[in-house]
Amino acid sequence: MANNASGIKKIAINTGGGDAPGLNAVIKAATVAALNRGWEVIGIRDGFNGIFLPENYPDDDGLLKLTYDVVKEITPLGGTILGTTNRGNPMRYPMKDTKGNIVEIDRSDEIMAGFRREKIDALISIGGDGSLYMAHCFAQKGLRVVGVPKTIDNDLEATVITFGFDTARSFATECIDRLHTTARSHRRVMIVEVMGRHAGWIALESGIPSSADVILLPEIPYDINIVADHLQKHFAKGRTHAIVVVAEGAKPAGGDSSVIEREAGKAERLGGAVDRVAAQLKDLIENEIRTVNLGHLLRGGSPTSFDRLTALRFGAAAVRALEEGESGIMVALNPPDVNYVPLDQVSGKMRSVPLDTDVMVTARDLGICFGD
Amino acid sequence: MANNASGIKKIAINTGGGDAPGLNAVIKAATVAALNRGWEVIGIRDGFNGIFLPENYPDDDGLLKLTYDVVKEITPLGGTILGTTNRGNPMRYPMKDTKGNIVEIDRSDEIMAGFRREKIDALISIGGDGSLYMAHCFAQKGLRVVGVPKTIDNDLEATVITFGFDTARSFATECIDRLHTTARSHRRVMIVEVMGRHAGWIALESGIPSSADVILLPEIPYDINIVADHLQKHFAKGRTHAIVVVAEGAKPAGGDSSVIEREAGKAERLGGAVDRVAAQLKDLIENEIRTVNLGHLLRGGSPTSFDRLTALRFGAAAVRALEEGESGIMVALNPPDVNYVPLDQVSGKMRSVPLDTDVMVTARDLGICFGD
Amino acid sequence: MANNASGIKKIAINTGGGDAPGLNAVIKAATVAALNRGWEVIGIRDGFNGIFLPENYPDDDGLLKLTYDVVKEITPLGGTILGTTNRGNPMRYPMKDTKGNIVEIDRSDEIMAGFRREKIDALISIGGDGSLYMAHCFAQKGLRVVGVPKTIDNDLEATVITFGFDTARSFATECIDRLHTTARSHRRVMIVEVMGRHAGWIALESGIPSSADVILLPEIPYDINIVADHLQKHFAKGRTHAIVVVAEGAKPAGGDSSVIEREAGKAERLGGAVDRVAAQLKDLIENEIRTVNLGHLLRGGSPTSFDRLTALRFGAAAVRALEEGESGIMVALNPPDVNYVPLDQVSGKMRSVPLDTDVMVTARDLGICFGD
Amino acid sequence: MANNASGIKKIAINTGGGDAPGLNAVIKAATVAALNRGWEVIGIRDGFNGIFLPENYPDDDGLLKLTYDVVKEITPLGGTILGTTNRGNPMRYPMKDTKGNIVEIDRSDEIMAGFRREKIDALISIGGDGSLYMAHCFAQKGLRVVGVPKTIDNDLEATVITFGFDTARSFATECIDRLHTTARSHRRVMIVEVMGRHAGWIALESGIPSSADVILLPEIPYDINIVADHLQKHFAKGRTHAIVVVAEGAKPAGGDSSVIEREAGKAERLGGAVDRVAAQLKDLIENEIRTVNLGHLLRGGSPTSFDRLTALRFGAAAVRALEEGESGIMVALNPPDVNYVPLDQVSGKMRSVPLDTDVMVTARDLGICFGD
Repeated sequence: MANNASGIKKIAINTGGGDAPGLNAVIKAATVAALNRGWEVIGIRDGFNGIFLPENYPDDDGLLKLTYDVVKEITPLGGTILGTTNRGNPMRYPMKDTKGNIVEIDRSDEIMAGFRREKIDALISIGGDGSLYMAHCFAQKGLRVVGVPKTIDNDLEATVITFGFDTARSFATECIDRLHTTARSHRRVMIVEVMGRHAGWIALESGIPSSADVILLPEIPYDINIVADHLQKHFAKGRTHAIVVVAEGAKPAGGDSSVIEREAGKAERLGGAVDRVAAQLKDLIENEIRTVNLGHLLRGGSPTSFDRLTALRFGAAAVRALEEGESGIMVALNPPDVNYVPLDQVSGKMRSVPLDTDVMVTARDLGICFGD
Repeated sequence: MANNASGIKKIAINTGGGDAPGLNAVIKAATVAALNRGWEVIGIRDGFNGIFLPENYPDDDGLLKLTYDVVKEITPLGGTILGTTNRGNPMRYPMKDTKGNIVEIDRSDEIMAGFRREKIDALISIGGDGSLYMAHCFAQKGLRVVGVPKTIDNDLEATVITFGFDTARSFATECIDRLHTTARSHRRVMIVEVMGRHAGWIALESGIPSSADVILLPEIPYDINIVADHLQKHFAKGRTHAIVVVAEGAKPAGGDSSVIEREAGKAERLGGAVDRVAAQLKDLIENEIRTVNLGHLLRGGSPTSFDRLTALRFGAAAVRALEEGESGIMVALNPPDVNYVPLDQVSGKMRSVPLDTDVMVTARDLGICFGD
Repeated sequence: MANNASGIKKIAINTGGGDAPGLNAVIKAATVAALNRGWEVIGIRDGFNGIFLPENYPDDDGLLKLTYDVVKEITPLGGTILGTTNRGNPMRYPMKDTKGNIVEIDRSDEIMAGFRREKIDALISIGGDGSLYMAHCFAQKGLRVVGVPKTIDNDLEATVITFGFDTARSFATECIDRLHTTARSHRRVMIVEVMGRHAGWIALESGIPSSADVILLPEIPYDINIVADHLQKHFAKGRTHAIVVVAEGAKPAGGDSSVIEREAGKAERLGGAVDRVAAQLKDLIENEIRTVNLGHLLRGGSPTSFDRLTALRFGAAAVRALEEGESGIMVALNPPDVNYVPLDQVSGKMRSVPLDTDVMVTARDLGICFGD
Repeated sequence: MANNASGIKKIAINTGGGDAPGLNAVIKAATVAALNRGWEVIGIRDGFNGIFLPENYPDDDGLLKLTYDVVKEITPLGGTILGTTNRGNPMRYPMKDTKGNIVEIDRSDEIMAGFRREKIDALISIGGDGSLYMAHCFAQKGLRVVGVPKTIDNDLEATVITFGFDTARSFATECIDRLHTTARSHRRVMIVEVMGRHAGWIALESGIPSSADVILLPEIPYDINIVADHLQKHFAKGRTHAIVVVAEGAKPAGGDSSVIEREAGKAERLGGAVDRVAAQLKDLIENEIRTVNLGHLLRGGSPTSFDRLTALRFGAAAVRALEEGESGIMVALNPPDVNYVPLDQVSGKMRSVPLDTDVMVTARDLGICFGD
């Protein structure tokens, strides 16, 4: 590790977008791996805010010096010690003009100036689609940048493994385990929403292990009549209760009657996919229906062993990539190997659930209904 | 234990009402303690259904012989191996008359006949208010009956300790821990509903340990303006997010404007207390609001160590009470002792949160707002 | 809270002795309750070291200013953010004399000077027997001191409730749950050691909920032949495996043959109670024996909901006690109330398991063997 | 699924060897997938015992009819509802001859007769090396057999994914998290043993996520002086404590002095790898040392979401393999696909930790010492 052809002396780390369990583990591994190479490490608070809005941080100018003592115990902690932000894209930063109108200003040059002012040689930027796009822009402006992908939905084509997903899937499974008991004693249909706007991985991989009877995915538009029919046969066989797992992005197939849709409309204004399904099912089956939205619960908590390991691998790989002179790339894990993907090839490429993948075949073998 | 003055040779056990973690531990302890006294033990399926609707149980006539092997491993399991029912009070059992109208029939004599037919000397009946009232009725008809109280809300005056409450409080705390992370990264107010229709114990004893900022209880009608004011000051001090814990039975104080109430109306039709609070708060604060209803998640899962112990104590105490010749009583735990409470003195006596109890004083010292 | 007759402006908090889950919750509640009264709050690092060994703390002189931001998220964290020490009683502090011999020096006057130098008006000292004794000494020297009891073993007579115990009991129960599976598939006797040098509360209240077959307590000297006999009958009845839970302080009854004792000697040199029991049992039963010492695992981890609540109550009560002008006392919880116990009446008064308490009666009803 | 070219009408399932979390999920998926194909399903109790020792099972002849109701709730349960056995290989079954000597008898023909008697068309055999070898033998005798691999150590070359490993790794990580606290407050070196006789996967993938300082693997013979040196430097840098994770099969390098080995000898008689390392380290470092053997705790408990999914995939794949006419093969998962491996190519082929794999590179980047 002694030979540092990269010439790097000081790096910065930031985290952007929504939370995902494992962010702190990436920070720890990147920090320790960099310190072990003799580099200095700075954390930027709240996305990029810490570097261009120092006035908001009277105590520390928005920067946190990352030492071994600061990071040594953070691996098991949820959230991110650097803070994050899902507002205020610095390239379209909302400001008031002289007439009091809100206008969007590109403040990326101020951020570049901040990096020069702090003598930061390179940036490790951990985040989702938006953050990685910003990383790409800074790379094009000349900053050395390595991205680390963060997608709790596991829906990024460029990397087979991400962190956060296993924690989300595990806690969803635990929650659905618990719902069985109360659903059973009240002979209910319990409809459970989990994250997954574009891809149904969490719904699928928490629904199968938790013995769901129906799973509705963004990848398979559902016919509510098929779902109702499945549930009726289910109860006719003497089953006591049913669990329906619904991904955030599940949508009815085109053929659904507009009447039902209208009925569902009121529900949707307050809720999401789970309320729509409940409203649609209400008149089609006799059993009591209850809904639970687990979405908010799945981003928190201590990362699982697997997510910690994945996150630590990402953090260490990002430092190695910088050492090797890489920039404008994202580290990815395609087991058992690490590889680098150009940042401009990452954006917008989704990893959906392939309908013929073995996990789907297993679900069909178990008699799970997908509404198709 | 050899000297069984009670003359009991065979007992039955049943479970009624909604689920509570620990039911199986009561069944285990009662079964083992009875078997150790040389008694035979029978479980009745689904409340009282198993004893008067044998035709519904083609396999086993609705009765499950309870042996050591059947119960040895059930302590950690959620739910109840006997099933429960929250329908079909056998004293007002819904049946069709000759004209096809649904009428309510008192079938308790059939149940008494069932006990005689099965040569059951005594019954241990585990359940809530409704089940204990039925137990009382059977006691008055001459059956030897000992009740075991089941109230996950911890709201029964007659017993200081109940089972299920600690599991509910613990899992609620764990869930709220997780909500902090996502609330923080989106700078949200997260409103969380927990069980507690008449008493706020779960809200209070999960809200304090999980660092809630506001807790709304059935015992303290809340003024939404006071809540909004508290939250505004909270954010003005630089706090990143807020957690509001709402008991199922929380109600606004009389003075709340009817306009807000009407606004909240729509929400209420779909949801409960949590939706009302969200609708009321929406126009009073700037931060994004999200709601989670944890109620359905809190009745399931493996009972905590404490709930198992409490449930085992109840089960063993019920057998000792029968051995001592008791009937028409409920066992209660008032630490460190067990005592017996006449069943006719149990019903309808709630244990509310006393507003000056030390737990409330602690909450006030921590700056928690109760909307008063 | 505005009226502060106590005249206090600044308090200090420290933690002493071994870890217990909940220490951080005490620190949080005491800090917030004090800040809400307008007091300043200082944490002393590593027991009393931070106040008399500033040279060891080049960064902060051994003192940590406790603000709302420092404590707001610490309730769920195991350990103590202030550090602790189970060495270096400052009243018998080991130092080298001029000849190089280690001698013990009373440095309490230096600590008193430290309190004066820092203008600390009062101390909240959280700790076990040793720490509370030191608190008592400082009270006698004129410092205003309120103690908070810390005993994971739950063995202090002066307080019915302590923090840490529920977390220890819960995790021990979870571990023993897991041991059943492997014990069963190998038809083993699994001997499990848990903490409890003088009192068997953890052994009793984790052993009963986890379906232990034998529990050995400090309070009941065991006859190994009775244990072996119980296990033989157990297997003769067709049981597949057995779990023996042993408290750290469990001792054989006087009548045990010295031969077995000698045999056990070798084991003891390496291990503790669990190795002694294993060595004694080895020749008396046929089944394979394995041992696990859970002791080290039970002090860590996030505190349970119950332990957090208890710890928060202690912290808030300590501040109220200071506000009321108390000193030289320890806060205690005797549900549902708080009371104050003079520190000079606390030391050495154990709360053993009463042999006729209801929990013991339950255990006997369940057929658990205590070796007596 | 209607077209069953295989002609199968009835299958049997059994489980052999030590426990692994997920066995019940394999049983569930295989049962449901087979029932959905119109097949009958029988479970054989206790490995092969249930089929050739019916006299040991007075209640049910050693066979358990597997219906939907029997399996519907077993996915989350640890252990196996069929029982297992790690004794009594039926091909070398220990029996007494006429002179009273124990001799080993091949009883496989009796088992084949049992299969014919019960009209079992095919067997799904879930187990480790030994069980899969037996499955191979029965396949050669003409029984249709599909094996399902069970190896909690994750050390089988033929399949990238196994069940049980993730649960073991996760609980080991949680335990080591807890050990940090107590190690820190006593400034100790805590040496932790985990499973892994031939491969260090569990040690590696629990040690990295739990911030271990040293990890000793079967794949890397360790030099105790290098370990001691690493720990000394660690404490010299001001670290408060250290965690050493040791795989069951970790071995010192050849060069270790025989003296230390002899010293360690006494320890080894009672314990395993962890005691050897403790005995070797004792004289080389100053800090207090404590040991914990987690091995026994890692086979139990409810399987993680990931292990459930893997196990369900195995169970469903085994049924599909039988339907496709396969026999004498083992199903394997090589993500995202399933494949079949001939049983005669499975045995004895280990999957060790490759020393240059990315996980190892990450560990080195984090400064973890492997004693080399």
